[in-house]
Order: sequence, then C-alpha cells, then structure tokens
Amino acid sequence: MENMQNVETSQTVNPFALPADRGALTPAEARAMFRSGLAVPTAGWSRGYAQANLMIVPRELAFDVLLFAQRNPKPCPILGVLDAGEVTGPLLAGGDIRTDVPRYTVYLDGQKVAEPTYISEYWRDDLVTFIVGCSFTFESALREGGISVAHIDQNVNVPMYKTNVRCEPAGSISGPLVVSMRPIPASRVADAVRITSRYPAVHGAPVHVGNPAELGIGDLGRPDFGDPVQIPEGHIPVFWACGVTPQAAVMESRPALAIGHAPGHMLITDARDSDYLVP
Amino acid sequence: MENMQNVETSQTVNPFALPADRGALTPAEARAMFRSGLAVPTAGWSRGYAQANLMIVPRELAFDVLLFAQRNPKPCPILGVLDAGEVTGPLLAGGDIRTDVPRYTVYLDGQKVAEPTYISEYWRDDLVTFIVGCSFTFESALREGGISVAHIDQNVNVPMYKTNVRCEPAGSISGPLVVSMRPIPASRVADAVRITSRYPAVHGAPVHVGNPAELGIGDLGRPDFGDPVQIPEGHIPVFWACGVTPQAAVMESRPALAIGHAPGHMLITDARDSDYLVP
Repeated sequence: MENMQNVETSQTVNPFALPADRGALTPAEARAMFRSGLAVPTAGWSRGYAQANLMIVPRELAFDVLLFAQRNPKPCPILGVLDAGEVTGPLLAGGDIRTDVPRYTVYLDGQKVAEPTYISEYWRDDLVTFIVGCSFTFESALREGGISVAHIDQNVNVPMYKTNVRCEPAGSISGPLVVSMRPIPASRVADAVRITSRYPAVHGAPVHVGNPAELGIGDLGRPDFGDPVQIPEGHIPVFWACGVTPQAAVMESRPALAIGHAPGHMLITDARDSDYLVP
Repeated sequence: MENMQNVETSQTVNPFALPADRGALTPAEARAMFRSGLAVPTAGWSRGYAQANLMIVPRELAFDVLLFAQRNPKPCPILGVLDAGEVTGPLLAGGDIRTDVPRYTVYLDGQKVAEPTYISEYWRDDLVTFIVGCSFTFESALREGGISVAHIDQNVNVPMYKTNVRCEPAGSISGPLVVSMRPIPASRVADAVRITSRYPAVHGAPVHVGNPAELGIGDLGRPDFGDPVQIPEGHIPVFWACGVTPQAAVMESRPALAIGHAPGHMLITDARDSDYLVP
C-alpha cells in the first residue's frame, strides 16, 4: 500500500525505487501501476507473463506494417492486433492501450516529439495497434536454465543497437534490423541458443553471436536504445532480433502519426511466457 | 516428351493419366506443365517441395485477410505475399501466379463463377496474392515415417470438410474452420501427431482426432471439397486445419472479386518442405 501511494504521485520514478515484489505482480496489477503514472523499464516485472512491444499506426499504413512483420518474423513476431480504434483486447483484459504502458514514444512525420506516460491526447479512431513479441519472454527461461541476464542483474534497461542488416521491405516500410544484446558465458552460449530457440514467437534463437563489428556495431558501450551493460570477463555478446525493429522501420516511412512504447518500457500482457513455448 | 505433348493439348486431363514421374519433377517443371493447361490435383507432385493454397483479393481487403491469417495461424499459415499487381516472387521464381496453378476458383460478389486454368483475364493491378501453407507438405514426412496417405494411394483429391468451428474474425472477414482428413491406423495416430507437429508453418498438429460429429461433419463420405476416401478397418479419421479456410472466409465477406486455387490444385513452390521443419 505504501508502495502504491509512492507510485501514484510519481511521474519520474528513479528506476532503483522499483516495487520490491515487481516480479510477483499480476499483469493487471502491473498495468494499473503504469496507468497511475509509474514510468520505468519493465524487465523482471510479472514473472512468467509475456511482455510486448507496441507499434500504433493509422489504418492506411496497417497492411504494410502487418506485411513487414510477416516478412520479418524474427524481429516482428505479432502476438495480437487491435483493430482500428480498439483500445483493449484479450492480451490486456480490462486494460487500455492508451494508458497501460509505462512510457510511450510519439512520432509526428517520423520525428520523435514526445515520450509521454499516456497517449490519450493523441488517440484517433483510425489507429491500429500491433502488439509485438519481446525477448523479455525468454529471459525467465534463461534464468531458470542458470544463465544470468546482465541487464536485470545490473538493474538497467536492455541495450539495443541498430545494425547494418536491412529488413525485407513491405510497401512503404523498410528499415534496419534492431537487436538486443545479452552477454553470455562462453560455456553457456550453446545453452542460450537452445533455450531461446524454443520461443520462436518471441524472437527465438539469436541472430548473431560474438562479433558486433559484423553487424555494424562499433561500440557496445553506446547502444542506440536502452542502457549499456558491463560485459563480464569470459562472456560473449549474443544478439537477438528486437521488437523495436518495426518502430525503427515505420519511422523511415514518416507517417503523419505513429506511436510506440519507449524502449524497454513494455506492455505487460496476460499471456504466459509458456504460451509461446514450442516442444 | 510424349508425355508433354499429351499434356499441352489437354484441358480436361483424366486424373489417372498423370505423368508417371510427377514426384520427381522440379517445381519449375511442374508449373510449366500447369501453365500449358494441365489441370489435375497436385498431391504427390514434386516430392520434397512445399505446395501452397492461394487467396487473391483486392488491396482494400488485404489487411483484413492478413489479419485473419495472423489470428488463425493453424488454418492460414502465410508463406508469402505478392504485393498489389505483382505476379511472381521468390516462391515461384520465373513463374506467373496467373497461369502456374493447375486450376483456380473465381468468385464475383462471393459467388463462384468459374474454375479456369488461367486467371489472366481477371487480373487487376490492385490484386494482392496470399500464398498459404498446405498440409501436403507434411505428407512426405508421414510417408517417410511409414504412415500411408490414403488419398495418394487411392489417387484422388484429399477430402475437405467445413466444420462447425468458427475462426476468429478480422474486420470484414469471418468464416468456418475447414479441415482436411486422413485416415490413420490407430497404432500410428500418436506418430502422425508427433510428425506433423514439427511443421507448424503448414498447419502443424491435427486439430481433432476421431470424432467427426463433434466438428459438425455428418458424413465423411460426402466432403465439401475434394473426394471421399475409403477408410480402412482399424483406421481413425484424423483432421488437420486446411488452407481452404481463408477462401471460405473471404467468400462470406462477398468482395467484388476474389480468386483462390481449386481445392487440391495447389501452387507448387520452390520452397522445400524441410524449410518449414522445426527441431
């Protein structure tokens, strides 16, 4: 209760002042906290529940976005779509897509203009919401497999990088593959591949292991989104396709209005991580 | 050569006058025969290559169709999409979607008006082609696993049935789940499930085993599409989601123009069945 009170009045919460039990919150409880204004990265929240990226575009762009996702399923695994004007759905039962994500990014004509905690003022009845899988889903599985996740341990946002790999375009939409990076002990890289490949609906196996230069990443210490993490001795940087990719691509097409989540500040859905596990 | 000559002049080929080596033809060779007018079901053709269902609709309906597929991935696994007006693509290199399928079904305002061997006369620059996975892909794997496929053995088209299960709608598109049926020896049903579940991109595991009445199928001897097959003693009817489903759904929305393949008369693609195998 004290926690909730603290949260409700906070618009600029220090990421280290997280609720101690954030991993035990239900998705509905977590969304209620974000609806109340809490604006923090969601790694480690609502353990066992799938987190998701957002991409909200006008209806006229929706086919191109959905086709882009179909052609680039590793970075853009679609978990659900809210039809034009819909603000809730089975992935966020009782929720509201305009308020329930901790922080959004608003683009006008492809330019970032705001990172608000609500998007009610931008809402239009022709907006279609794409809910895109997030690699946070397999982080629980990695940790259960005894592989620690650096950005959770270091209490920062996952580092994300634009690469020199181009996605397959679709209509007006094209852009670079964006990846997230996790340092993995050399002896556990094969296990990390094996574990994450069982979650094809949420980015699946890594796209690259060990050589950031080949992806066009000059300095791991300067991610394009999120925070840098310390890479322990003997750890290899491993790269997974990232759900910020559709956001980066939509930006290149400069629609009048587009809205994403703020990197690392995800929608916490009612789907369980295990719903996306394949045998 | 004699075979080819026979084929080129034939518009109503007897299905039993198939080329003896049809399983050994490359996809390009098979498509060339269909382009020349051969109009037969494609089960057993171009062994090892993925066959596909077609759904061609005007651009204005394309988002709803793609969203319908996203929401109903078991019956509607999208293998590829040709953008508005495109007639070829990587799944049919050097081919032409207007001529390379053995037989099409043309619908005007939701009514079937023709089953031509070409659709050139209906083509418009705003038509978007959806190439949808087909259960024929896993039939090779079943046969390699020692499970015979009745409709291939009996040299008929696979039997398909509309069910009483409704798909999840998307925009203007809604309709029933359509299933294909294969009789499987009771001792091999578990193997058939295991083998086909490794092909999630082409309908995957069965949706139902053994009780047609529960799907609203009154008489297995009277399929809604394709041909009846004899069910041997001791065999169980096993039902897989079928790629005719999007066609059945689009029909309910009565677009001015829509074109599908004729049931069982598939597009033979350049993708290998093994491309869709998961570990």
